[in-house]
Amino acid sequence: MFNNEMISVKTIGYVRTKARGSQVREKTMLSQIIIFNEYIKALEGIKDFSHIIVLFWLNKISSKDMLLKVHPRGRDDLPLLGIFATRSMFRPNPIGLTIVELIKVEKNKLTVRGLDAFDLTPVIDIKPYDFWDTKVGIKVPEWWKKLEKSKKT
Amino acid sequence: MFNNEMISVKTIGYVRTKARGSQVREKTMLSQIIIFNEYIKALEGIKDFSHIIVLFWLNKISSKDMLLKVHPRGRDDLPLLGIFATRSMFRPNPIGLTIVELIKVEKNKLTVRGLDAFDLTPVIDIKPYDFWDTKVGIKVPEWWKKLEKSKKT
Repeated sequence: MFNNEMISVKTIGYVRTKARGSQVREKTMLSQIIIFNEYIKALEGIKDFSHIIVLFWLNKISSKDMLLKVHPRGRDDLPLLGIFATRSMFRPNPIGLTIVELIKVEKNKLTVRGLDAFDLTPVIDIKPYDFWDTKVGIKVPEWWKKLEKSKKT
Repeated sequence: MFNNEMISVKTIGYVRTKARGSQVREKTMLSQIIIFNEYIKALEGIKDFSHIIVLFWLNKISSKDMLLKVHPRGRDDLPLLGIFATRSMFRPNPIGLTIVELIKVEKNKLTVRGLDAFDLTPVIDIKPYDFWDTKVGIKVPEWWKKLEKSKKT
């Protein structure tokens, strides 16, 4: 009933970062989001939020890269998981989603901390992060904890 | 450089809910997400997360409905804000994003609590919600607190 429906998405801006390769995953790294001039008015009031949700389009991923299952970060010591149970890029729709700290807003330029997107990645939406998005008492699988632990050592 | 780039998005499933009209905003309401059979394998392991992020396409909104500024919930007593400072539907890309509690997974059917999407809304992505998504010490504007307070009374 929906399967053939085509949805088309507009780019609203793009990412600028000096980070290269795996540096983009460093949570302390600052990046800029440059919003196209036609959407400047749409930023009004955003500076009053400390955090925003950034949706971006992983434009290095082509549809033939799509996987149904992956080992997180390609690690064989972690279970083979469905792509929807991971944040892997190789999803049916390569949409990235990261919640970042909003540091500064200057005209059409947002400076943010912790955006794990490469330079020139197209941005497709920005949403304010609010108290409904901060869930408490969440549960995650053991593999997730194992992965995080290994990142820190 | 990006402005004319066309991005097309696939529907991966759809929402089923008995809620009608403003009932869809009731946070205790259960809904189902039906994933198309071709993506069933992509759900493996998702049941071990207590919460998921659901991205859906607000297919009742046409591109001519897009606004740059809105009063949240149409309320004149709240400031006129840029669309990116709100969760309004009338955005350049009408993508809805809600973090929901994952109650049950049966084959291609996810039962979730708190999904504010209408019946038959196309779903475009599902991501696990993890500890990187739970920000502490966040700040939101006064209008946001005023809006929430008025909902409870």
